[in-house]
Amino acid sequence: MIILFGVFVRFTPEASARWEEEEKKQNNITSDIENDFYYRYPSFQDVHVMIFIGFGFLMTFLQRYGFGAVGFNFLLASFGIQWAILMQGWFHSFKDGKILIGVENLINADFCVGSVCVAFGAILGKSSPVQLLIMTLFQVTLFSVNEYILLNLLHVIDAGGSMTIHTFGAYFGLTVTRILYRPNLEQSKDKQGSVYHSDIFAMIGTIFLWMYWPSFNSAVSNHGDAQHRAAINTYCSLAACVLTTVAFSSMLEKKGKLDMVHIQNATLAGGVAVGTSAEMMLPPYGSLIVGFICGIVSTVGYVYLTPFLESRLHIQDTCGIHNLHGMPGIIGGIVGAITAAAATKRVYGSEGLVKTFDFTGDYANRTPMPLLGGPLWGAS
Amino acid sequence: MIILFGVFVRFTPEASARWEEEEKKQNNITSDIENDFYYRYPSFQDVHVMIFIGFGFLMTFLQRYGFGAVGFNFLLASFGIQWAILMQGWFHSFKDGKILIGVENLINADFCVGSVCVAFGAILGKSSPVQLLIMTLFQVTLFSVNEYILLNLLHVIDAGGSMTIHTFGAYFGLTVTRILYRPNLEQSKDKQGSVYHSDIFAMIGTIFLWMYWPSFNSAVSNHGDAQHRAAINTYCSLAACVLTTVAFSSMLEKKGKLDMVHIQNATLAGGVAVGTSAEMMLPPYGSLIVGFICGIVSTVGYVYLTPFLESRLHIQDTCGIHNLHGMPGIIGGIVGAITAAAATKRVYGSEGLVKTFDFTGDYANRTPMPLLGGPLWGAS
Amino acid sequence: MIILFGVFVRFTPEASARWEEEEKKQNNITSDIENDFYYRYPSFQDVHVMIFIGFGFLMTFLQRYGFGAVGFNFLLASFGIQWAILMQGWFHSFKDGKILIGVENLINADFCVGSVCVAFGAILGKSSPVQLLIMTLFQVTLFSVNEYILLNLLHVIDAGGSMTIHTFGAYFGLTVTRILYRPNLEQSKDKQGSVYHSDIFAMIGTIFLWMYWPSFNSAVSNHGDAQHRAAINTYCSLAACVLTTVAFSSMLEKKGKLDMVHIQNATLAGGVAVGTSAEMMLPPYGSLIVGFICGIVSTVGYVYLTPFLESRLHIQDTCGIHNLHGMPGIIGGIVGAITAAAATKRVYGSEGLVKTFDFTGDYANRTPMPLLGGPLWGAS
Repeated sequence: MIILFGVFVRFTPEASARWEEEEKKQNNITSDIENDFYYRYPSFQDVHVMIFIGFGFLMTFLQRYGFGAVGFNFLLASFGIQWAILMQGWFHSFKDGKILIGVENLINADFCVGSVCVAFGAILGKSSPVQLLIMTLFQVTLFSVNEYILLNLLHVIDAGGSMTIHTFGAYFGLTVTRILYRPNLEQSKDKQGSVYHSDIFAMIGTIFLWMYWPSFNSAVSNHGDAQHRAAINTYCSLAACVLTTVAFSSMLEKKGKLDMVHIQNATLAGGVAVGTSAEMMLPPYGSLIVGFICGIVSTVGYVYLTPFLESRLHIQDTCGIHNLHGMPGIIGGIVGAITAAAATKRVYGSEGLVKTFDFTGDYANRTPMPLLGGPLWGAS
Repeated sequence: MIILFGVFVRFTPEASARWEEEEKKQNNITSDIENDFYYRYPSFQDVHVMIFIGFGFLMTFLQRYGFGAVGFNFLLASFGIQWAILMQGWFHSFKDGKILIGVENLINADFCVGSVCVAFGAILGKSSPVQLLIMTLFQVTLFSVNEYILLNLLHVIDAGGSMTIHTFGAYFGLTVTRILYRPNLEQSKDKQGSVYHSDIFAMIGTIFLWMYWPSFNSAVSNHGDAQHRAAINTYCSLAACVLTTVAFSSMLEKKGKLDMVHIQNATLAGGVAVGTSAEMMLPPYGSLIVGFICGIVSTVGYVYLTPFLESRLHIQDTCGIHNLHGMPGIIGGIVGAITAAAATKRVYGSEGLVKTFDFTGDYANRTPMPLLGGPLWGAS
Repeated sequence: MIILFGVFVRFTPEASARWEEEEKKQNNITSDIENDFYYRYPSFQDVHVMIFIGFGFLMTFLQRYGFGAVGFNFLLASFGIQWAILMQGWFHSFKDGKILIGVENLINADFCVGSVCVAFGAILGKSSPVQLLIMTLFQVTLFSVNEYILLNLLHVIDAGGSMTIHTFGAYFGLTVTRILYRPNLEQSKDKQGSVYHSDIFAMIGTIFLWMYWPSFNSAVSNHGDAQHRAAINTYCSLAACVLTTVAFSSMLEKKGKLDMVHIQNATLAGGVAVGTSAEMMLPPYGSLIVGFICGIVSTVGYVYLTPFLESRLHIQDTCGIHNLHGMPGIIGGIVGAITAAAATKRVYGSEGLVKTFDFTGDYANRTPMPLLGGPLWGAS
């Protein structure tokens, strides 16, 4: 790792001491605060908290596995971010034989590791640290290839990663847990219980994820209005999702009691589903609708789909990532496509349209007006 | 809720894709970083943490009610922020039949919900989720009316919300708990004990509230020096309050032992009391004095006043919000009035004076020099 | 304290209401966002979390001392920051008989208190609150004197405080614990066990420290590229340190089991060691090497050195601060000296070189090219 970093990794100009005289003069920048650091660093730290505290503590609900969940999550994420900087660097930031890293690379590495944490949720309690590191190695590599295909070749816009992070992570994790399935693992079920304190620890994870999700979806959006909009939409979607989850959870359970697992997980589905479209001109009521739908889908998934997957398809999904990341991620992709298809110059303004969807270079002739079966995918 | 959002809520220009070509050109803005998002977003996230982690975990000290406290707080806050965006929007951001929302609206919605969380502290453990949602509905509505009267009609300045948030929340909560009083509720007292772990969870809430309070008081202050000053003053006041609380707690308890309830709560009173005046030119030693007084008042309140309220007035104040939010909020209003009354052009500069107290439009002729019984309230 | 603040402490111009018309016009500042507040405030809040949540919860691992650790840490830090603002103010920000405070002073006060928290780790569980307050009083005073000698007289650059904060704090703490040594304290050893839940609480502290360390090392760096670079380097070093710690911990323990104490502590050593050099042009692979070395040194220290110190030198180091802060701090100083000695105009650019090492005023003739035994210390 040290050798690979030594050969390839250098600072981006904005993080280099030569920024002072070279870049600033060339680009006519008058103030230090225009450095990308000040646009992105607060969001980066929020995302960082989500990966290490959020995902780590969300998985502490197992009675006998709290320390393991936090510790292994810590280990695999630390390994993953280093490997992700290299892999994503080769695909996205490679210039003159060097990878130029800045704060945006750190955010993307955290995103990539977020995908690994999602997959870890499916195999929680069933794997050794070494197995986890190997899984991380493969998943980060595949993640980067998948991301390169989506973002660079198909020119898809997916700032919050509904597709690249959540859907990919969920189905990767489900595949791994299917492969790891052994009938005698059924025995471990009696360890799956939670106790009172472990549930409060898990709430720490849930609430930090919930709170910082607006930063997650806005972290790598365009500067200015796009980051602003992405944060507002995610906030609205998450708030709506909590209400729907609580309502459906008490309806579907006997005696109207709330199920802690639903509150810990399904409340987050709204953030997943709005990831792709949050930075577009999705109006706030649209975010509420997305949150509303995802709250229902996710809660129903926990009640009916997870037991079905386990008994019929032999997929043991410890944390229910299919309900939290898989299905909402797919919904997110669809919502993103619809929102992009509905984009007009009247709503975005002509400069805003070009900036939002990055219709530059080879893509300058693309328009967001989809003909049926036409370039819908391109604009999404 | 979705219908109401659909009819009324739109993005503020700074969060709209048209910002790029319309607003930026008109206002001669040269850099994306001038978007209000970058001024307010880090503070917003801190406030968000205070509402969901801070208030949520502060109330986990009850032995059998930890999960309920966090979970119900999560539920009512998620509901409250949606309703608050609408209510506050109608009163403050209504333009051409639409509510234009930006990051400042999200902060204000969080503030409004903070007031509900304060009131929740009084009835903790005595109400069902449905009762809580109804309370939230009413309180958010009344909060917005009260805020409109104070800020818009009386033109009071109250950035940290000593009056609008804390005093209002505390007395609303005390009223509700008085109404809910039933003699047989006395039985629930044996559930009021705390255990060792639940006290450590409560410390998570306390410390996050304590740490992020400077963001709370500076979040909606004017850009630039006012936010800077509000953060410094709150920091000083809180630090002084901790020392006073610890000193008085060990003096008032037998054998000099520290009472955990005091440390979990009274240490925060300094932040409440400096809310109104923090963004004014209250000097740092003034903040220390405010923190010093509030630490005493709040600790003495816990020792003598709460038992008195419960036995004589039948007000069961589970978390002691009267000591933490009620009395310090009133002190905060008084300190704010005094600080505003003492404002002079020499200290503020003439432009600074107009900017700090917003002497524009109909209020351009107001001066901060109060005659006895004169426009003191106007300047505060 | 109130009197001292009243006599000496005033706002820095950027936090004063007169900023609007005086400073902004004089310095030709066109935008409110150029206020130092927006450069430093997010980092300040992260450092604040590290001091109160990070150090507080890191020390909750003792079974019977969780609440005490968080509470006493809260108390001493609140006292320390007030005293540190005064002491550091007299040495660094004294102008016309007044201390002018701004957000940078708050960060430096937090740093100073961080040093006290380090020392607290050595005497955890062996001292009363009053003893702690006295220790804080002395240590803050000595810290400020030491900082003045290093930064102002020797003109050393140490933004992340490897030397001033960590090394000083560790050896101060070790001295205190040596003085407090009483043979009968050995009895308290049976209280040193940890239980499952207290270890998860300690992980909250570890992870918050780990996550926000990039903010710690970049908080008081120069605006722009230096803050950017410091954050990236710290991030890389910490990630490498986690992997090395886990690898060596499982190698050194019987049966390959992971030791929780190592994961809770040694993983942080990489952040300590890169403190001095992070804002210099230390390349990312250099950070990885530093993290790699510190992970080894710190883990080996926990396994072999701590028992040796206790049995031979009668130094009871409860939290192992010698391994986490002492040795990595020394490594950090050495790495900083080497990085500074290797600075050239080719890498930094001539303006960047002057800005990074602050070769202005009396130091304008200094160069970073060290002759053997020459001005190496000056440049570091």
